[in-house]
Amino acid sequence: MSKTIDVCLSPELLHLYPVENKLVVVVDILRATSCMTAGIANGVKSITPKADLEECRKLKEKGYIIAGERNGKHVEGFDLGNSPFGYMNEEYKGKKIGVTTTNGTVAINKSKNASEVIIGSFLNLSAVAEHCKKSPYDVLILCAGWKGKVNMEDSLFAGALVEALNETHKSACDPPLMMEKMYQAAKSDLLGFVQKSSHVSRLQKIGIGKDIEFCLEIDKYTEIPVLRGEELIKL
Amino acid sequence: MSKTIDVCLSPELLHLYPVENKLVVVVDILRATSCMTAGIANGVKSITPKADLEECRKLKEKGYIIAGERNGKHVEGFDLGNSPFGYMNEEYKGKKIGVTTTNGTVAINKSKNASEVIIGSFLNLSAVAEHCKKSPYDVLILCAGWKGKVNMEDSLFAGALVEALNETHKSACDPPLMMEKMYQAAKSDLLGFVQKSSHVSRLQKIGIGKDIEFCLEIDKYTEIPVLRGEELIKL
Repeated sequence: MSKTIDVCLSPELLHLYPVENKLVVVVDILRATSCMTAGIANGVKSITPKADLEECRKLKEKGYIIAGERNGKHVEGFDLGNSPFGYMNEEYKGKKIGVTTTNGTVAINKSKNASEVIIGSFLNLSAVAEHCKKSPYDVLILCAGWKGKVNMEDSLFAGALVEALNETHKSACDPPLMMEKMYQAAKSDLLGFVQKSSHVSRLQKIGIGKDIEFCLEIDKYTEIPVLRGEELIKL
Repeated sequence: MSKTIDVCLSPELLHLYPVENKLVVVVDILRATSCMTAGIANGVKSITPKADLEECRKLKEKGYIIAGERNGKHVEGFDLGNSPFGYMNEEYKGKKIGVTTTNGTVAINKSKNASEVIIGSFLNLSAVAEHCKKSPYDVLILCAGWKGKVNMEDSLFAGALVEALNETHKSACDPPLMMEKMYQAAKSDLLGFVQKSSHVSRLQKIGIGKDIEFCLEIDKYTEIPVLRGEELIKL
């Protein structure tokens, strides 16, 4: 095992993790990176993440479909909110989407200096793991969290990916070992465990239960969104 | 359950967790808060945490015993390093100790605006849990971590305390649920799991294996160090 894997549990800790010469896997299970995976898998041409709401809104003038979410809710004036089902609209095949979300797009923008930035979700877990095995770079999983705080669903994905790579990648620090342990204890009833999380409780209040079940489906897709310049495209 | 429990996994995230009106439990299992617990339990009169090495050194002139650790190692010119066995010296009964460590004393100093700050370790786990039950305040466990990063042993203590309070305190956010899950998966072989941690590997390189076993002993003491002004004294 010559390659390492590390987990940054919140973008607020990213200054402690150099991204240079790393393959960064950005994860925001509920729901930004699940949406991106579903969108690219369903034929969306590209997805451009913007941290800023107004910058994203301007992409509309350039012909983009625009998706906007803040605090779990669809932002007025945006074509899409942050539901993976929205991204699977047949009409969006071949189209460009601009997106801004509370946590996920911030995390992507913070990792731009990495050697490669890919998008991870339970939906493409095994494909991401296989790509990590083939990559020459050490892996850093960046959990988007919730407004700087550590969250359960992104951490569980981190644990799942660490487990999938435990024969090829050595843990660089404690969080990979911790998240793997937690995932292994939770995986027999992932939905039951995640339903206790604070974000699920927020989302259920706004009626998005079916999104949650969808976002926890493992290996529904084999496509991986990868950042090229400002855009996420199919790897 | 009207009281809540939360876990701040690193002092670098403490700005996201208001400490006002909280009972803060500071934890640095390897080894600062284990040392403090052992020292106070063994009759040390008070322990004054200083984030700064030179400020701590000045306490020597005032008649304090001084303890200094950086990167796991005893700092030259200090009476003590960061071994709990050092704090159990019969000659220190009734004496005042000044201490500075890489992570633990920084965490204590950052929590000074809390309603109460107490010191937690596996050595006094049940006593700390009982105190939390009696306290009118919501509980915030502050893990000292390692130079800002999340570490395994402090997180495991957090999980153990969440478990001990699961009938009286509701989780305020995801990290309490996550750490409880991890602790429950690890507790049947706590030493075996902790031995995989990065800090244990650092400490074993400098020959401190017996400190680690000691710091994982559960409920060896009933004493709790509490911060009063600048000093930790017996609660």
